[in-house]
Amino acid sequence: MNIETIKWIDPTPKIKQPILRLIDQTKLPSELKFIDCVDVEMVAESIEVLRVRGAPAIGVAAAYGVALGAWNALGRKSFSSIIKSDIQRLANTRPTAVNLFWALNIMQQVIEKGADNDESVADDLLTMAHKICAEDHAVCRRIGKHGANLLSDGNTVLTHCNAGGLATGGYGTALGIIYSATEQGKKVHVFADETRPLLQGSRLTAWELLQNGVDVTLICDNMAATVMRGQSIDCVIVGADRVAANGDVANKIGTYGLAVLAKEHGIPFYVAAPISTIDFKLSSGEEIPIEERASEEVSVGNMGLTAPENVKIFNPAFDVTPHYLVDAIITEHGVAKPAFSETLGALNEMPKQRATDF
Amino acid sequence: MNIETIKWIDPTPKIKQPILRLIDQTKLPSELKFIDCVDVEMVAESIEVLRVRGAPAIGVAAAYGVALGAWNALGRKSFSSIIKSDIQRLANTRPTAVNLFWALNIMQQVIEKGADNDESVADDLLTMAHKICAEDHAVCRRIGKHGANLLSDGNTVLTHCNAGGLATGGYGTALGIIYSATEQGKKVHVFADETRPLLQGSRLTAWELLQNGVDVTLICDNMAATVMRGQSIDCVIVGADRVAANGDVANKIGTYGLAVLAKEHGIPFYVAAPISTIDFKLSSGEEIPIEERASEEVSVGNMGLTAPENVKIFNPAFDVTPHYLVDAIITEHGVAKPAFSETLGALNEMPKQRATDF
Repeated sequence: MNIETIKWIDPTPKIKQPILRLIDQTKLPSELKFIDCVDVEMVAESIEVLRVRGAPAIGVAAAYGVALGAWNALGRKSFSSIIKSDIQRLANTRPTAVNLFWALNIMQQVIEKGADNDESVADDLLTMAHKICAEDHAVCRRIGKHGANLLSDGNTVLTHCNAGGLATGGYGTALGIIYSATEQGKKVHVFADETRPLLQGSRLTAWELLQNGVDVTLICDNMAATVMRGQSIDCVIVGADRVAANGDVANKIGTYGLAVLAKEHGIPFYVAAPISTIDFKLSSGEEIPIEERASEEVSVGNMGLTAPENVKIFNPAFDVTPHYLVDAIITEHGVAKPAFSETLGALNEMPKQRATDF
Repeated sequence: MNIETIKWIDPTPKIKQPILRLIDQTKLPSELKFIDCVDVEMVAESIEVLRVRGAPAIGVAAAYGVALGAWNALGRKSFSSIIKSDIQRLANTRPTAVNLFWALNIMQQVIEKGADNDESVADDLLTMAHKICAEDHAVCRRIGKHGANLLSDGNTVLTHCNAGGLATGGYGTALGIIYSATEQGKKVHVFADETRPLLQGSRLTAWELLQNGVDVTLICDNMAATVMRGQSIDCVIVGADRVAANGDVANKIGTYGLAVLAKEHGIPFYVAAPISTIDFKLSSGEEIPIEERASEEVSVGNMGLTAPENVKIFNPAFDVTPHYLVDAIITEHGVAKPAFSETLGALNEMPKQRATDF
């Protein structure tokens, strides 16, 4: 499974400028369309309107966005201040996924390292963006391998939202585990929550699992409890937008409820996430900012109103699952089990192997 | 609150035939349109495609359907067999709501009572349909009053699907309790689940609550857990499509999950339903047939695909909430508390006051 969710294209003699090519995920599954971003504003807007989404993918796209901005700023006196404002613009797109700030922080460090001239800074920024992207692939592969060990042949997994190739550089975290298990020869069946309001589960997860020949059944979010009760769900695996040091997990709205339901039914609840998603600065999930999005995402169907005009709507994009409902957090360094305050820190202190480590 | 969800119109000099006028609920909230049914097939189809829905409303509509069929069959030799096949057609529309079979059974008894001639049978059937409709109003008022005693001024209630005026003859069961509390001068705030796949919560519940000046906030189904955790929800109130003798409750898919979440958060979970919804023949919810509906309800948004073509979809319309998750069942005869096997039976044995009792 390798979807080219995010692709950097160097300038060609014909197109004299670099392009950040993104799958326009708002168009899936009806059509597989790409958007070619030529400046930071296009990248930032693509993150805001969810053409590219998923915590790891947002990080990768933002890193390339900075590289693109630097290329565009070459030859201008205000090179440094342009990049500074580019980083600010990208940081303001979405508040919850910590990978965005993690990636921008790495790019900031590249700038602060201070190459001799603007061309070298731009080169270094692009090199680092490529490293972040390559590392994302490697990290997802490792998460997949660690997680696949938790699955047996014939297992059925329930997942929520999209933590797949479309949410990362191309392999996926939660779905990376499915792909990895499949590569090991295990047959895995997946129930995918459609994930209202924006249907990332039905539009994206079902699409990419079908693309990869994985047996998937789509359900509405409110059917998960019935499926857990009536069908044999072996575990729930979801991704994460930000994990606090104590193991509290911010992820797509609906995740918390799923975790409660899993507990009620004695089903293990697993979170798959790179270490970059863990925010060790936050002691608990209560400190994670939860994005509240436009009410029209809920009230406007494609034909017209799905709710009366002017009805009050509460539309949080994420929720926080308290650590006591989480059975394991699967990272590229291994599987952390409770108590997460100790186990997550221990994983973080493992020998650094990342290309992006300074 | 009195919505004319279902209205019988006698023949006029201009329109020489009776009409069963239904609000076409598939058109709400974009427009308030009516459909004028002139034969049994139109009534049956309206039940199937959910122009009229909600267990009590289905019962009322089916009763009027039989009366309409009888009127149309007048003067035909096969009068009796036409009505018999009309009843069969209506019984085949939807399997879960027991009120449908309850109402058809009453109509059947009217026929078996055997008036002297076809005209009298048709008259008796219409009289009984009117009685069933009037009784539904009265029963909902009584449920409302009993339930309102469980609410205090300033309470916040979470509800699922639509158990309101649109789901009954015009006042509602779960929402009848809200209306009744409001009439008592209590201020009640409602969180309404949108209720996928057909959005009865956002399209219908939000619409009728706004019509009646009730403070309502709409959420996606998967947000209920977060709202329970973060906001002060005082209780959950839902309707029911069928209740087994032990208190197991079949209701719109998603109800069971809500009940688990309510338990996790220490929130009382109430079911509002007329005695006609209780199926004393069934000892537990496992015997209740659960309708599985077309996958296109999930996979086709109004603009086009919301899921890939050919993805497997599981689309149950209802689920069963086991009795141990239910704190009270509010009927027109009073509030039943556990153990329901005893308390529901006791309510049923109360002095019969119903117009439809023989």
